[in-house]
Amino acid sequence: MAELGTLVLLRHGQSTWNAENLFTGWVDVPLSEQGEGEARKGGQLLSEAALLPDVVHTSLLRRAISTANIALDAADRHWIPVKRDWRLNERHYGALQGKNKKQTLDEFGEEQFMLWRRSYDTPPPEIDPKDEWSQAGDARYANLGDDAPLTECLKDVVTRLLPYWESEIVPDLRAGKTVLVAAHGNSLRALVKHLDGISDADIAGLNIPTGIPLRYDLTDDLKPVKAGGEYLDPDAAKEAAAAVANQGR
Amino acid sequence: MAELGTLVLLRHGQSTWNAENLFTGWVDVPLSEQGEGEARKGGQLLSEAALLPDVVHTSLLRRAISTANIALDAADRHWIPVKRDWRLNERHYGALQGKNKKQTLDEFGEEQFMLWRRSYDTPPPEIDPKDEWSQAGDARYANLGDDAPLTECLKDVVTRLLPYWESEIVPDLRAGKTVLVAAHGNSLRALVKHLDGISDADIAGLNIPTGIPLRYDLTDDLKPVKAGGEYLDPDAAKEAAAAVANQGR
Repeated sequence: MAELGTLVLLRHGQSTWNAENLFTGWVDVPLSEQGEGEARKGGQLLSEAALLPDVVHTSLLRRAISTANIALDAADRHWIPVKRDWRLNERHYGALQGKNKKQTLDEFGEEQFMLWRRSYDTPPPEIDPKDEWSQAGDARYANLGDDAPLTECLKDVVTRLLPYWESEIVPDLRAGKTVLVAAHGNSLRALVKHLDGISDADIAGLNIPTGIPLRYDLTDDLKPVKAGGEYLDPDAAKEAAAAVANQGR
Repeated sequence: MAELGTLVLLRHGQSTWNAENLFTGWVDVPLSEQGEGEARKGGQLLSEAALLPDVVHTSLLRRAISTANIALDAADRHWIPVKRDWRLNERHYGALQGKNKKQTLDEFGEEQFMLWRRSYDTPPPEIDPKDEWSQAGDARYANLGDDAPLTECLKDVVTRLLPYWESEIVPDLRAGKTVLVAAHGNSLRALVKHLDGISDADIAGLNIPTGIPLRYDLTDDLKPVKAGGEYLDPDAAKEAAAAVANQGR
């Protein structure tokens, strides 16, 4: 039986809205300068580990696309095939998109705030299509029609992500490729939940750091050889995950 | 019969080796800062003309890939599907790769220099696979095997480009898409020669400026509605083409 390829997950670096502590979701903000630096560093880690992607999958959002472009350029793999899909997008944050995290915490209280941020199946209120941070009318989602979400919980992300995993990413892995997935905090949490079989409750405690490639070697039935995968820079990953957990405080 | 899509050609902006007046060919040099600015300007021109690509085709070379990335980001079309192929690469410059254009002109004389640069069917000498500027062993061309060129004349570029045009670009146009091709001086000259039916002799006089999108509307039998297409900034195109013609002087 053919050896399975290697899966490499890369969460985008800091965006301008991360820096301003705003809920972003599907709002298409760029990387900050720090985020560009994180992407370059991610590419250098790939290069130093000789973990060279044969194909890259990205979301339709600029911060993941730029992260992939910058990291692959740094790893001298800018020329590999590219696939993009909305199913790798960040969780749609509904009516919270564009809102300050600290203000939202103060306004709604710790319990409601953490429910929206970390509960598995409670989405924030839907965004009004006329809201300035709505994606209504955005050409890239035109073909979704009524399937375009107005808000999502993590469970919704798992539901829309898995068909893409099965139909587009798994075939690349079965072909023996090293597959880079450049995406977002919640779309990658959804994927890791599936891979590692993490429970609906326990996924709340999992934070994926930005800019540090996370390597998964997989068995032939697509289970991780090592639960949780392996970060290319484990010490930096530990520090960064702690920092993410404290967002909004 | 369905309306044909629109073809948009974009030659990459200045590279570091353009700036140093070196023959580049398949050597994978980056854009200069000026080249990055040209790419951004190209994207702004697309945006201002509301000529928004639905799909982009690039070569496997960094200067075309970066040009596409930067231009599409500037036009807010960073999220469109991407296809890359070696058949869109710059002409392989053989043993001249890495050589200074002025020194080559002085060493070999005007006649030989212009033969290598502009004759349709006289390639430069083949590059030695052990030459520091050879692409022997480059992973991105591994699947070409013995088809990987060691030098090319423009006729060779036409020969390897047209199968890609027919099999990959034409179907996108037939599907009604706006198709951006981000490539190189000679791969774009090869394509324009085919589209406009330019003779082997006359193509020598055609220079395509960098960073200025060139729009072709096509009839259903893939002939240009307007011979030579239309530059989105015609005045800048005229100036830039004159400058290209004087390279190496």
